[in-house]
Amino acid sequence: MGNPRKPDPIGRAAHVAARIGAVRRRTVELAAPLTAEDAMVQSMPDASPAKWHLGHTTWFFETFVLARAERDFRAFHPRYGYLFNSYYEAAGPRQPRPSRGLLSRPPLEEVLRYRAEVDARLAAAFGAGLAPDLVDVAELGAAHEEQHQELLLTDVKHAFASSPLRPAYGPLPPAPARPAPALAFVPREGGVVEIGASGPGFAFDNERPRHRTWLEPHALASRPATCGEWLAFMADGGYRRAELWLAEGWDAVRANGWEAPLYWERDGAGWAVYTLGGMRAVADAEPVQHVSFHEADAFARWAGARLPTEPEWEVAAAAAGAGEGHFADAGRLQPDAAPARPGLVQLAGDVWEWTRSAYGPYPGFRPLSGALGEYNGKFMVSQLVLRGGSCLTPAGHVRPSYRNFFPPGARWQSSGVRLARDA
Amino acid sequence: MGNPRKPDPIGRAAHVAARIGAVRRRTVELAAPLTAEDAMVQSMPDASPAKWHLGHTTWFFETFVLARAERDFRAFHPRYGYLFNSYYEAAGPRQPRPSRGLLSRPPLEEVLRYRAEVDARLAAAFGAGLAPDLVDVAELGAAHEEQHQELLLTDVKHAFASSPLRPAYGPLPPAPARPAPALAFVPREGGVVEIGASGPGFAFDNERPRHRTWLEPHALASRPATCGEWLAFMADGGYRRAELWLAEGWDAVRANGWEAPLYWERDGAGWAVYTLGGMRAVADAEPVQHVSFHEADAFARWAGARLPTEPEWEVAAAAAGAGEGHFADAGRLQPDAAPARPGLVQLAGDVWEWTRSAYGPYPGFRPLSGALGEYNGKFMVSQLVLRGGSCLTPAGHVRPSYRNFFPPGARWQSSGVRLARDA
Amino acid sequence: MGNPRKPDPIGRAAHVAARIGAVRRRTVELAAPLTAEDAMVQSMPDASPAKWHLGHTTWFFETFVLARAERDFRAFHPRYGYLFNSYYEAAGPRQPRPSRGLLSRPPLEEVLRYRAEVDARLAAAFGAGLAPDLVDVAELGAAHEEQHQELLLTDVKHAFASSPLRPAYGPLPPAPARPAPALAFVPREGGVVEIGASGPGFAFDNERPRHRTWLEPHALASRPATCGEWLAFMADGGYRRAELWLAEGWDAVRANGWEAPLYWERDGAGWAVYTLGGMRAVADAEPVQHVSFHEADAFARWAGARLPTEPEWEVAAAAAGAGEGHFADAGRLQPDAAPARPGLVQLAGDVWEWTRSAYGPYPGFRPLSGALGEYNGKFMVSQLVLRGGSCLTPAGHVRPSYRNFFPPGARWQSSGVRLARDA
Amino acid sequence: MGNPRKPDPIGRAAHVAARIGAVRRRTVELAAPLTAEDAMVQSMPDASPAKWHLGHTTWFFETFVLARAERDFRAFHPRYGYLFNSYYEAAGPRQPRPSRGLLSRPPLEEVLRYRAEVDARLAAAFGAGLAPDLVDVAELGAAHEEQHQELLLTDVKHAFASSPLRPAYGPLPPAPARPAPALAFVPREGGVVEIGASGPGFAFDNERPRHRTWLEPHALASRPATCGEWLAFMADGGYRRAELWLAEGWDAVRANGWEAPLYWERDGAGWAVYTLGGMRAVADAEPVQHVSFHEADAFARWAGARLPTEPEWEVAAAAAGAGEGHFADAGRLQPDAAPARPGLVQLAGDVWEWTRSAYGPYPGFRPLSGALGEYNGKFMVSQLVLRGGSCLTPAGHVRPSYRNFFPPGARWQSSGVRLARDA
Repeated sequence: MGNPRKPDPIGRAAHVAARIGAVRRRTVELAAPLTAEDAMVQSMPDASPAKWHLGHTTWFFETFVLARAERDFRAFHPRYGYLFNSYYEAAGPRQPRPSRGLLSRPPLEEVLRYRAEVDARLAAAFGAGLAPDLVDVAELGAAHEEQHQELLLTDVKHAFASSPLRPAYGPLPPAPARPAPALAFVPREGGVVEIGASGPGFAFDNERPRHRTWLEPHALASRPATCGEWLAFMADGGYRRAELWLAEGWDAVRANGWEAPLYWERDGAGWAVYTLGGMRAVADAEPVQHVSFHEADAFARWAGARLPTEPEWEVAAAAAGAGEGHFADAGRLQPDAAPARPGLVQLAGDVWEWTRSAYGPYPGFRPLSGALGEYNGKFMVSQLVLRGGSCLTPAGHVRPSYRNFFPPGARWQSSGVRLARDA
Repeated sequence: MGNPRKPDPIGRAAHVAARIGAVRRRTVELAAPLTAEDAMVQSMPDASPAKWHLGHTTWFFETFVLARAERDFRAFHPRYGYLFNSYYEAAGPRQPRPSRGLLSRPPLEEVLRYRAEVDARLAAAFGAGLAPDLVDVAELGAAHEEQHQELLLTDVKHAFASSPLRPAYGPLPPAPARPAPALAFVPREGGVVEIGASGPGFAFDNERPRHRTWLEPHALASRPATCGEWLAFMADGGYRRAELWLAEGWDAVRANGWEAPLYWERDGAGWAVYTLGGMRAVADAEPVQHVSFHEADAFARWAGARLPTEPEWEVAAAAAGAGEGHFADAGRLQPDAAPARPGLVQLAGDVWEWTRSAYGPYPGFRPLSGALGEYNGKFMVSQLVLRGGSCLTPAGHVRPSYRNFFPPGARWQSSGVRLARDA
Repeated sequence: MGNPRKPDPIGRAAHVAARIGAVRRRTVELAAPLTAEDAMVQSMPDASPAKWHLGHTTWFFETFVLARAERDFRAFHPRYGYLFNSYYEAAGPRQPRPSRGLLSRPPLEEVLRYRAEVDARLAAAFGAGLAPDLVDVAELGAAHEEQHQELLLTDVKHAFASSPLRPAYGPLPPAPARPAPALAFVPREGGVVEIGASGPGFAFDNERPRHRTWLEPHALASRPATCGEWLAFMADGGYRRAELWLAEGWDAVRANGWEAPLYWERDGAGWAVYTLGGMRAVADAEPVQHVSFHEADAFARWAGARLPTEPEWEVAAAAAGAGEGHFADAGRLQPDAAPARPGLVQLAGDVWEWTRSAYGPYPGFRPLSGALGEYNGKFMVSQLVLRGGSCLTPAGHVRPSYRNFFPPGARWQSSGVRLARDA
Repeated sequence: MGNPRKPDPIGRAAHVAARIGAVRRRTVELAAPLTAEDAMVQSMPDASPAKWHLGHTTWFFETFVLARAERDFRAFHPRYGYLFNSYYEAAGPRQPRPSRGLLSRPPLEEVLRYRAEVDARLAAAFGAGLAPDLVDVAELGAAHEEQHQELLLTDVKHAFASSPLRPAYGPLPPAPARPAPALAFVPREGGVVEIGASGPGFAFDNERPRHRTWLEPHALASRPATCGEWLAFMADGGYRRAELWLAEGWDAVRANGWEAPLYWERDGAGWAVYTLGGMRAVADAEPVQHVSFHEADAFARWAGARLPTEPEWEVAAAAAGAGEGHFADAGRLQPDAAPARPGLVQLAGDVWEWTRSAYGPYPGFRPLSGALGEYNGKFMVSQLVLRGGSCLTPAGHVRPSYRNFFPPGARWQSSGVRLARDA
């Protein structure tokens, strides 16, 4: 996006149209286990109801594609722009974020009709020949919707975990069948390297431009940290020792009473964890998830290590190749134990990995033009980058150059830790 | 309640059983226009979702009647005590009040099944012969459920008014067909009077014991203040003149930006109001409602008057007789204009009337024993008494001795103003 | 005030002038143990720095007497109206209350010069012959300043108790030399009684008019509750048993972590208390103080009693006569043990006594005219009346009809408990 | 600090001792214009009273030098560790930061005695021969105290600006005698560069290790942005146009009502500004200061530019040489107009310059050992780096590698803007 592309061949539009169709169907599938009541819950201001995700992703296509592509465009409903705009100032006022849970109307079934109508009109627009720049926007819309697929799952998880009944979204994920392989630190060379997206394939504006940077020699952990390792951190007073924490993190520990990752609950002498399939015992072999940057950073300090930087991670991931992560499509919706294989494993899928890089613009960064320029650029302060992809990420959504970002206290994403060390 | 009664004749239990049946059916009728999604909305911590009201009123009978009446009592669901307890410390921990909107589970239909099962078991318990003290508790349960019928309506109103779509619960109430009669002040004598409930009929513990008090000569307004009079208050700078307000009220005006009653919205040069039937123009002749104690008090000061006290109101109401108020059963769900009739009118129905009496215990007050002692007594500070009954109150629910109470800033009840004056 | 008075004889003005002189000198004496730094501390929004009290009481005379009495009135400083107005909306904008501690300027010595100049000008105005209505206002100013003398002490106490060094304001008050006499309940008759101020002597507008009210037979405790009795309440789980508390009180217990009166600190197995003379052991025989209404109410419920009402208290106090309380002038600044004498003792001095009467207007209440109408009337909601007078109250300041008032959670006044019972 | 040094020659200890003496005297000089009352004000939680700065800097030497150097160490006062510890968890509990303004005791004069005693004992310790590692800590203490000299001034400025009397700390700084030179963008080459402190001279741990990084070609503004340019930004709707702001910045604009830099006040049609010498008109030629990162970032976007990064700034500053900034020692305490000279000017002194670099560890960063490891490292998240030095910074305190850091919303430092551009 926002970079020069070759003229759009017929094939590209058709490919994008097909991709949109698949993504749109998948979103509805992900919402299928939810009742209309489930789809309304907003359990904290950072999360949104599933119904809102269903509407918002549709509004995105309606507003940024159909409104420009259709000659006689008419909005499905005059108030949906207000209801389903997320944060685009240029697109007008909107329902306050913390009040998305008040929207009993429109009912879920009407939002599904909204989806169906917009899908049909999108198909018609593609059929009539969409201008290349709108094909670009439509492709962005598909990637955008995949991001909301993941948020739909993280938000349902938070909502269900907030219910005293702890309902299950799907089947209970079994504990891993194998232990986690021993942790190794893999040495990595320094020097001038290149990171960022290049070439014609889709990437977000924040992944561009590809540019050079300098790396010092370092080492990366062969796999993400496990729940077993996290239990050792806890047993060693990890949540009670100020010297392990950044000042802001220590404040968060005390203000929020953190003593374990989010969704962990004491169960007799041990710990149970809420999964999207319900409660079960914490499994040592699983990568730990639902930890904040602050927890990840303290854990790394405790381990005599540090978190990786963006370039360290990206160069390694680009070299490592695709890997065998467990993405959302696998249906487990919970990370699994790492494979016993030399080198760096589980770089994508399973858990997002906190880096110690603040989220900011790359040298020469140019946001998209118009309202879509608000997509990524306006969040470039006070957040940290996560890399990888998780068990709730749609397969095929991520790339080595992909940059996820959240504030340092966020825990409701599937966020874990890969350690790094100076050489 | 809590007072000596004659031994329970067969007839009384049957009467109570019949009353419970009618009340319970009516609650379900009131919820019938709501979708399962509507029944989940909690638009502020003071309000509760309709589904919660349906569950809580059922839990009340299950906990305070069935658990004592059934030999082999088993709760419908082991977690409903946690979900549906409102504030009874003696009945154990409970879902935090501001989080009642997170309960997508149990679904509405299961709560209705819960209602049906408890209704059936109640009928069986009555059939098997209920101990007189449990008949008393069951009768209290019916009155309790009627209170929640009114709250269900006030809370749905708040929820719908919070939605950008302003959905309607029922048909639009037309503007009154007649103008309001001119306001008159009716002189009332002083001296030693008696107030409070006496005799064997049902009354809440806070209405007892009947006792003597002293009244100075005074005068009461013939009818509640109207929207037309409120518009005059507003036009005269009522919301901008500090000297009209109590200090706490003036703080509330500025903190909340009050400039009109709740649910009023500017509509061009005039004002529209949200009713349970949707938006329409403010009607001069209607009693004003959805004003806080602070607003009522400032309005009275502006009018050169004051609010009545509890005894002034009760003595007058007892003398005036039943009257012709518009209660919820009439289906208008909005106050109507006062009848043109001499004396005091609209003392019950239409709007609750703020008094300047703080809610407290009567001399010799004794709360019910056990958990039910928490019903009324533990709120006897920081609240003001309202008298009368409103267009959302079930007909037959109130008495001249009835004491409603809310904090001075509450606006979401159907609360209005009857003026008073020193003689 | 605000009631018909006889024409002002020469003697009355001279009497008021002399009284003002004595009161003004006393305020400066009370501030004398404080450094300029001490006089600046504002340890919570409810409290004010001593320097502010010194300035505010002076501004009161300057604004409400001199500005009306002097032909060529000129304010001492153009910004002092802003700095030292407390809450009089009619007197213009003012320094926000929570920010009074930011006023390093004017320095304390300049505020003392301000006092001296206003004192001289007041004396001159009296010498030139003050109009009777301004003599009334000046007399109010003296009573007003006495109230601020007490607040100066309560606020210094809070400030010093907030300091890690716990500095002393004066000498350490010794523990009482005698034990408290046994508690007795003294029966009191019911019937029509009269309360409120009458006659030409000074009283605040909120004490008027004298009026009739009805009392049921009851009994009053012979003396205030002691620290020894409070320790028994604590030992019996008083702060941990929800059933003893009003709902709002129980919320306050948990939100604030109350487990003893304010200024009590654990000291090994026992309790120490901060006094204006520093820390020392809690003395069983002393009346308990620094408890909120909520604590007083819970204690009464625990004791099988209740708090008295205003009329109960006032009728008893008027009958009991002056008594032998320990007021601020005695220099102890801490309550002392009750005398062993039949009947009701310590009705004034030692501790203020919470009543269960909400603070409101008497029948026929008329506030003073103009800005001074804000003195008392605008606080007549959400507060409870206290009666008596305390060890921090100037001797001669109080009357049986005197009404003090604070919100139910306030603890930093010298507030204690006298129990009552229904007959 | 924390890096290998040559064995300490006699000369070095003497040099450090002399430097400490000069710095310590300077701090007292800076506090001299303040009354004891002024030295107590804490006008917001981020700021501290001057008396606290005087005590804390002394505690630093007492705790980290004397307690290790003196054989029979005894603290000046047993509670000063509690009172004057800032944030060192390893040094024990401490007065809560927002409550530093409550410390009327110890009085200012005792804190000055504390200073004198610690100074004398430090001199004695140096005289007796201080271990090289303690000479290092003492040198750090001098740099630490210089940082608090600047904070003392920024905090007094905030305190005085919060007073309705707007008192002056010193003489009024005149408007610049010359206009600002035209703004030019100076091209800068890219490539592998080195930044960070090296060599034996003092630097904070966060400036080390010196390391390589990569720069793209870019351009830097020749001088900081001026008030005249800021007025143009404001006139062009800078504070009202969402598209210019990061999302968090736009939230801050609305939540705080920002419409101009801190300390600017409307004055008729124009703007006045509070300086440490009192109020005067905003001067076009002066570098703008007291803007947050968010404002700096929005201004840059409006100007079609961006903020510089740390390496861009440091490499340029290292090349530019010392320059002619106006530091605190010049006594103006307000930035002055830039000199008309080619190249980059005012890189140090006048105003701190926000970078867009998040504050984080350099590759290979090692914090100091023990409690002093908390000095810099534990703040390495959620803050942005500022470079340069300001009119409130002691001359000689800064270096090209110096890293200042504050959260993005902070405005009370002397923080301004130097623009940058991609080549």
